Amino acid sequence: MAIITLTTDFGTKDHFVGAIKGTIYRELEDAKIVDISHNISPFNIQECAYILKNSYKAFPEGTIHIVGVDSEPTTENKHLAVLVDGHYFIAANNGVISLITASIKPDKVVEIKIPNPAHGSFPVLDVFVQVACHIARGGTLDVVGKNFNELRELKEFSPRITNDGKTIVGSVIYIDNYGNVISNIQRSLFDAYRAGRKFELQARNKRLYEVHNKYSDIINFELEPQSRKGPGDLLALFNSAGYIELAIYKSDLNTVGGASSLLGLNYRDTIIVNFL
Amino acid sequence: MAIITLTTDFGTKDHFVGAIKGTIYRELEDAKIVDISHNISPFNIQECAYILKNSYKAFPEGTIHIVGVDSEPTTENKHLAVLVDGHYFIAANNGVISLITASIKPDKVVEIKIPNPAHGSFPVLDVFVQVACHIARGGTLDVVGKNFNELRELKEFSPRITNDGKTIVGSVIYIDNYGNVISNIQRSLFDAYRAGRKFELQARNKRLYEVHNKYSDIINFELEPQSRKGPGDLLALFNSAGYIELAIYKSDLNTVGGASSLLGLNYRDTIIVNFL
Amino acid sequence: MAIITLTTDFGTKDHFVGAIKGTIYRELEDAKIVDISHNISPFNIQECAYILKNSYKAFPEGTIHIVGVDSEPTTENKHLAVLVDGHYFIAANNGVISLITASIKPDKVVEIKIPNPAHGSFPVLDVFVQVACHIARGGTLDVVGKNFNELRELKEFSPRITNDGKTIVGSVIYIDNYGNVISNIQRSLFDAYRAGRKFELQARNKRLYEVHNKYSDIINFELEPQSRKGPGDLLALFNSAGYIELAIYKSDLNTVGGASSLLGLNYRDTIIVNFL
Repeated sequence: MAIITLTTDFGTKDHFVGAIKGTIYRELEDAKIVDISHNISPFNIQECAYILKNSYKAFPEGTIHIVGVDSEPTTENKHLAVLVDGHYFIAANNGVISLITASIKPDKVVEIKIPNPAHGSFPVLDVFVQVACHIARGGTLDVVGKNFNELRELKEFSPRITNDGKTIVGSVIYIDNYGNVISNIQRSLFDAYRAGRKFELQARNKRLYEVHNKYSDIINFELEPQSRKGPGDLLALFNSAGYIELAIYKSDLNTVGGASSLLGLNYRDTIIVNFL
Repeated sequence: MAIITLTTDFGTKDHFVGAIKGTIYRELEDAKIVDISHNISPFNIQECAYILKNSYKAFPEGTIHIVGVDSEPTTENKHLAVLVDGHYFIAANNGVISLITASIKPDKVVEIKIPNPAHGSFPVLDVFVQVACHIARGGTLDVVGKNFNELRELKEFSPRITNDGKTIVGSVIYIDNYGNVISNIQRSLFDAYRAGRKFELQARNKRLYEVHNKYSDIINFELEPQSRKGPGDLLALFNSAGYIELAIYKSDLNTVGGASSLLGLNYRDTIIVNFL
Repeated sequence: MAIITLTTDFGTKDHFVGAIKGTIYRELEDAKIVDISHNISPFNIQECAYILKNSYKAFPEGTIHIVGVDSEPTTENKHLAVLVDGHYFIAANNGVISLITASIKPDKVVEIKIPNPAHGSFPVLDVFVQVACHIARGGTLDVVGKNFNELRELKEFSPRITNDGKTIVGSVIYIDNYGNVISNIQRSLFDAYRAGRKFELQARNKRLYEVHNKYSDIINFELEPQSRKGPGDLLALFNSAGYIELAIYKSDLNTVGGASSLLGLNYRDTIIVNFL
């Protein structure tokens, strides 16, 4: 039995998630349902795209991912079922899976046209769950709808290269649980343009000259504890998802603050790399 | 194996939910446990009743629902096990299931009297889990306790009809993850009194003259995007649970605000329908 | 198949938890994964230790507990796999399991040395999940690494006894979802020193002379409701975990406040018992 994952902005207080799970279990007694996230900021397509991209691949091939963010169908926001990289995604055509389809060509994209869907305000329950259960039972996408060729893309995820390849102008695409600030600058892009040069990373009034591989790399264990960098100090690293991230070492966003609050960085703010 | 659901105000940080799940798995290796919500506002019976009513039916018949809100037993808050609408509920007699039993007569209600319950401050673990596992193993409610006839009701859920049936005086019973404000005015009641008349919906200083079926119904797709209503605009709809809801289209309660914060509406505040 | 539990400070918004679960399911199709908590305050070892201690025992013996708090390996924070009290813990050597190992001698502690671990910033995924799956498949700790004898302890959990045994100087070790304040004074210690004496419990400017067994013990049901103590009143109790806890009866931390906000008590603040 395939796994069905849920990625939504429904929060965990309301009845929405419970209703979805109950409905799936009523259809598929042995369903394996996994919550990826229900705490995406409401209608935040970028956050959703980032979370999906960095979690879907961990699941076995054949996993069915229900994406419940901005999912009311309109003439401009059609319901899609997509097979890409061995995974199924059921989502509205609003860009939530564009971080995945940007680098991997989908095997199949259909616009969902199922008979008798409820035309209400809870399409994830009324439509997406039906489609997910159909796929989980071994059904094909051809039964679900017709081929579709207009997958929406998100522009914000691509940094701009300027200054004859000497500058990467990126922006903030995600802020995580620790207040760490994630840019849209991927390691592969950084390495491709760097070509061995030194560089300066700019965010607000801060300048950094190193990008680490893990958080604790800022600590020099040869120094005495009181002389070392440590908790509260700013660093940049290639995070586990492969993006340049700014972090305050061992930050707690709710007490002393994280990189987002301490540097005053928010979604779409600029982060620049200058190669020297 | 029956599903056991959990609906509590325990939050998701503390050890309470983990301890409950561990205990269930120790009793029933193949248990299927589903979280409905652990983020009910502490001791908020109304919220709990609303969430339960709108999620339980999605689950298969025979599902066992543990309700851990205001569950310390006192002479005025007895522990009950209830079979209603094909579902089992284990809860204190504080009104949490009254939204369900108000419209569907329970098949059986017993006051829980199990031998050797721990008399501590964690009765959901010490008592409710035991009862749930008993039922999951096929046990009957007769073994759990004696018949009980004094189910507590919640008054706040019924709007008043005044002005010779020309006015429905409702109130706010729930505020969801988006800040959408849900009234206690159900579609069935609205339709019964409306009798084809025009109407005016009042909430604070706002007046609305339409109740939609889904959020995007406020968008007129024949207009150019810049001329349409859209994100940030107020609408009323019959939500997926069948209640009149006030929503700000695509609102984010934590940034720009939702209907609750923008209209200044809180629990128990009045929402009025005047038929014209 | 053993249960694998997760206790982390990852939060529930980011992709971290989803990625971990997906990876486990890819390795072990029939894994049973249970979230204990993902909302531990970032890098808060004490909170984590308290939550683990009070939840692990509920699970069946043989359960594997992954602890993802402050888990980046350094020369001063080694990765361990520990068998204690019939349960497996996979954690960094930062004290997170010290509340358990303080009272129960571990059967085995090894420093994790697995081949080809990724040296990145997500060791819970790269290392802990591998070890957990190895154990779940029946593998031994000897394969995982070498014996280790330097388990870190947390000092903050032991109250001091002063004044010739007439005073217990404790401190706040946890604040729960209701704002209830939990001290490090255990019932067993309290009983051992009390020896039948009367006592005074001091927290800030409050004095209490009773420690109850459950919250509703402060209500005298023989009095009329308006004359009783009840919601909003302060009490002390031995909580379900066996610690002295200060609580406001039926408090909601987000609205009227809880013991933590109303008494102004925070982590590490002092709570004193004087035997009279």
